[in-house]
Amino acid sequence: MILDKVNTPEDLRNLSIDEMNTLADEMRELIIKKVNTTGGHMGPNLGIIEATIAMHYVFNSPVDKIIFDVSHQCYPHKILTGRKEGFTDPDKYLKYTGYTAPEESEHDLFKVGHTSTSVSLAAGVAKARDLKGEKGNVIALIGDGSLSGGEAFEGFDNAAVLGSNIIIIVNDNDMSIAENHGGLYSNLKELRETNGKSENNFFKSLGFEYHYVADGNNIASLIETLKQVKDTNHPVVVHIHTLKGHGLKVAEENKEMFHWIMPGTLDENKPALSVPVEDYNSVTKEFILNKAAQNPATAVIVAGTPGVFGFDSTFRNKLGKQYTDVGIAEEHAVAYASALAKSGAKPVLSLMSSFVQRTYDQLSQDLCLNNSPVTLLVHWGGISGADATHLCVFDIPLVSNIPNMVYLAPTCKEEYLAMLEYSYNQNEHPVAIRVPAIPLKSTGVKDDTDYSILNKFKVTHSGKKVAIIGLGNFYSLGEKVREELKRKLGIDATLINPRFITGCDEELLNELKKNHEIVITLEDGLLNGGFGEKIARFYGNSSMKVLNFGADKEFPDRVPLNELYQRYHLMPELIVSDIEKCLEVTYV
Amino acid sequence: MILDKVNTPEDLRNLSIDEMNTLADEMRELIIKKVNTTGGHMGPNLGIIEATIAMHYVFNSPVDKIIFDVSHQCYPHKILTGRKEGFTDPDKYLKYTGYTAPEESEHDLFKVGHTSTSVSLAAGVAKARDLKGEKGNVIALIGDGSLSGGEAFEGFDNAAVLGSNIIIIVNDNDMSIAENHGGLYSNLKELRETNGKSENNFFKSLGFEYHYVADGNNIASLIETLKQVKDTNHPVVVHIHTLKGHGLKVAEENKEMFHWIMPGTLDENKPALSVPVEDYNSVTKEFILNKAAQNPATAVIVAGTPGVFGFDSTFRNKLGKQYTDVGIAEEHAVAYASALAKSGAKPVLSLMSSFVQRTYDQLSQDLCLNNSPVTLLVHWGGISGADATHLCVFDIPLVSNIPNMVYLAPTCKEEYLAMLEYSYNQNEHPVAIRVPAIPLKSTGVKDDTDYSILNKFKVTHSGKKVAIIGLGNFYSLGEKVREELKRKLGIDATLINPRFITGCDEELLNELKKNHEIVITLEDGLLNGGFGEKIARFYGNSSMKVLNFGADKEFPDRVPLNELYQRYHLMPELIVSDIEKCLEVTYV
Repeated sequence: MILDKVNTPEDLRNLSIDEMNTLADEMRELIIKKVNTTGGHMGPNLGIIEATIAMHYVFNSPVDKIIFDVSHQCYPHKILTGRKEGFTDPDKYLKYTGYTAPEESEHDLFKVGHTSTSVSLAAGVAKARDLKGEKGNVIALIGDGSLSGGEAFEGFDNAAVLGSNIIIIVNDNDMSIAENHGGLYSNLKELRETNGKSENNFFKSLGFEYHYVADGNNIASLIETLKQVKDTNHPVVVHIHTLKGHGLKVAEENKEMFHWIMPGTLDENKPALSVPVEDYNSVTKEFILNKAAQNPATAVIVAGTPGVFGFDSTFRNKLGKQYTDVGIAEEHAVAYASALAKSGAKPVLSLMSSFVQRTYDQLSQDLCLNNSPVTLLVHWGGISGADATHLCVFDIPLVSNIPNMVYLAPTCKEEYLAMLEYSYNQNEHPVAIRVPAIPLKSTGVKDDTDYSILNKFKVTHSGKKVAIIGLGNFYSLGEKVREELKRKLGIDATLINPRFITGCDEELLNELKKNHEIVITLEDGLLNGGFGEKIARFYGNSSMKVLNFGADKEFPDRVPLNELYQRYHLMPELIVSDIEKCLEVTYV
Repeated sequence: MILDKVNTPEDLRNLSIDEMNTLADEMRELIIKKVNTTGGHMGPNLGIIEATIAMHYVFNSPVDKIIFDVSHQCYPHKILTGRKEGFTDPDKYLKYTGYTAPEESEHDLFKVGHTSTSVSLAAGVAKARDLKGEKGNVIALIGDGSLSGGEAFEGFDNAAVLGSNIIIIVNDNDMSIAENHGGLYSNLKELRETNGKSENNFFKSLGFEYHYVADGNNIASLIETLKQVKDTNHPVVVHIHTLKGHGLKVAEENKEMFHWIMPGTLDENKPALSVPVEDYNSVTKEFILNKAAQNPATAVIVAGTPGVFGFDSTFRNKLGKQYTDVGIAEEHAVAYASALAKSGAKPVLSLMSSFVQRTYDQLSQDLCLNNSPVTLLVHWGGISGADATHLCVFDIPLVSNIPNMVYLAPTCKEEYLAMLEYSYNQNEHPVAIRVPAIPLKSTGVKDDTDYSILNKFKVTHSGKKVAIIGLGNFYSLGEKVREELKRKLGIDATLINPRFITGCDEELLNELKKNHEIVITLEDGLLNGGFGEKIARFYGNSSMKVLNFGADKEFPDRVPLNELYQRYHLMPELIVSDIEKCLEVTYV
């Protein structure tokens, strides 16, 4: 195998074009096999193999600096930069992260997993080089899907006037995670169709020197162009047209489905698709389709990740003009939704917890300051074993401390539906719902709560001495803690489903003082700035003890969930043990 | 006066062009007089008078919807939409806000004060119109300075594919608050210089129909073009070239200085500029200039608002290439600073508290996840009587709950300098410093604290029973509370200057349990998600009482500071009274 001879980028420079083509085939096979085993980003990596070889052939990393955008296309780069064992050796498949990680290699400059950052980062790297009087090329590799994010534009706008070497490779595979949306993409299409010659040129309008590579999966062609721009003394864009999923027919033909796959997707003997089960996505979709049919001003908005919510093409097509995918543009999504709501439409905006982070000022200024009755669905919020770049624990501190926002945490299907109805029908406030990130639970009993009466917590079991407030995903943990308290300490604890994240039920909390000594809060998210701290603050002037359970302030990186639960004491036995200690102190 | 005849936009349609020109002069005079009396945005409003008249002449507000970006150019609009008394009658000068405000008029669609939002909002308004099957024009008015913000680009990208009527008027006065920076501005210049004919055209590249008005202060010319685009069935950009400060010579010639002025700036007998006094801005500037001279890799970054930090042209010129104004592009600023730091440069990034909000994900992902040793200076953080759009109370919840961040709150010049030195010299963490938003205090004693030992609070007076933790700006309030406690209750309270916002000094807090019954926290910012709640959580399992003082979760709009202090109990007498009540309960 050619790959046996390639351990560093330097080794590429001994290869002929033919050998590099063979190398690409070998890498492709490894990536397909590994990703099909572990799951991961398939299409983006298959499309960028040739360009990665060409980049490392022409440029001299790590003296030259290559910065990946979102970095879900960095597998070929990892293979070429000393980490091929992570692809050749199944025992080491999980040794390296799926994103660039400076702790793994000097060829990785940043820990990256959110999009649209590479050009800004590259501009900073280039500026530092200039201030320090150093030499070398700075290269940003950004996919077309990432271009729609505001940070990317801010980066391009500033990189254009850097006045020195910066090379931005735009990897245009004509796809975001799903299809692209936006005026910029018409321009990319026009540029592709005119072999880069169109008069309308977004990049040239910003002042970049512009190069086009029609076949971005052709190593010779890429090398030729990259050699031309190497050591440029001014900002350059190299627009390369690649094929997402290149070399794997099923991925080429199903680009969205093969952007990121589950393990075993390619296996012939993979389990047959089971009967569709009801989950929070299906409940959401059904709710939306009903409302959309009843009211033409129902508007569904996503920001580039419809798949996360199960919004497949059937669903999207059914909605037609009532569906907007704004691309990776969460800031716009929030402002757009706010304006829709203020104009009498009924917007429902779905965002992943990790990406709600991309739009704080819009939540505050465009949405909450204007008190626009948008329904914001926050998905996947909770502690997980995810990569540090995709943690979903920050949404409660981020969203719930903004005035006017009503943030709700349902614990079952019926509550979720009642909250959706309330939010959809009201005109008073922005309402966010933290869609449960756990398997669907159904009580079978319609929830007829009037959620317009804000901040009323629900006592689901009335006991004494200890009160457990189990928020959203962690309500069921609360149930288990109650059982364990009974079993171990014989305490008949009160159990509370708060439902509202954004306010305290002061009447109830005061009531608890009568025959409770300890209130514990359980939240599936960050403790700092979160829900529990408000309860602690509320009881600050009283003798009520409060124990808050949730995630510590840290960026855990692929730490197994059970380990995190252990670390944060999010297990019934550990919680009861903490309660016991607290009671003992009280009785000393 | 022509203005006497104009009470609604409709009244304009009875006027000749000559009369409208006269009207513009009358409005100009009113605006100059009022702004010089109350302070406010001068240049932006003087530049947009003619365009506002033309817009309201051609379009039929409020059936046609006009959405202002940042809305610091909405004074002429307010005069024409039923609020001229706010400009003609000095007694009513303060009746209306300086920004668009739906509660004032049906002609104002959104409460707006941060930039770059108008196109996204307009896209939502237009989409709602289409879904509801309604008619009418939707117009966004956005200044060139606002174009650099990512949200604006996201809006343009999506507005371009709306497929129906949306008209974006780009008010190009060749200035942001300070001068513009970025590739886009070279394109605007090229378009101005070619009378809109340049082949390079940012707006056309995104797919917009494009119109250029060379003299954007010429009512006839504006009306002619706006009539052409009225009732368009597709997205249109009208690029108008206006003069910032038009009609007031000193404002035309000093565009940055006259963007926003203090009361009396035009008065002949205004007090002579006094001898420059030392303040936190001057201390910052001196520190930076020293470091910049010592280390060429010192890099100063601002995002469009250098004036807020006193970074005048002398200072900027001294720094030369070591100074970057990225324009209104806070997201880019953070990523750029992070990359500079990771590449061995020494970036110092200054942002206003209210605008730190525009960059959460970058603080989290680009900066803190990568643990880049950036110095972030957060200015003006604290409770104020500001407009609801410019509150500076949210930075502590926003910044301090992000892992790896070290957020510091100095209480005097010497601490500030020591923190700056620490941050500049270390390579471990991103460090944010909340620059005191109060008059400079100097102890005259060098602070030799080693801030690399994180989260060590400083006991400045050791007492008993009550411990007061006074954070940053509110340390001096803590001193006053201590005095009042002594005077009124004879309590010799402990006083603590925590200095660190991002962590608890657990050792000290535990120590306090020995001979204290109540800990109070004072913070000049939002209680929810803030500093005090961490202290409340810490003491949750103990019998220590905790009272947190700070701002409520709300958007107060121009509420006088004293009224807010009263409302939030941020006065020594009120705080001591609260402490007294809490002590009484304890002794019941």
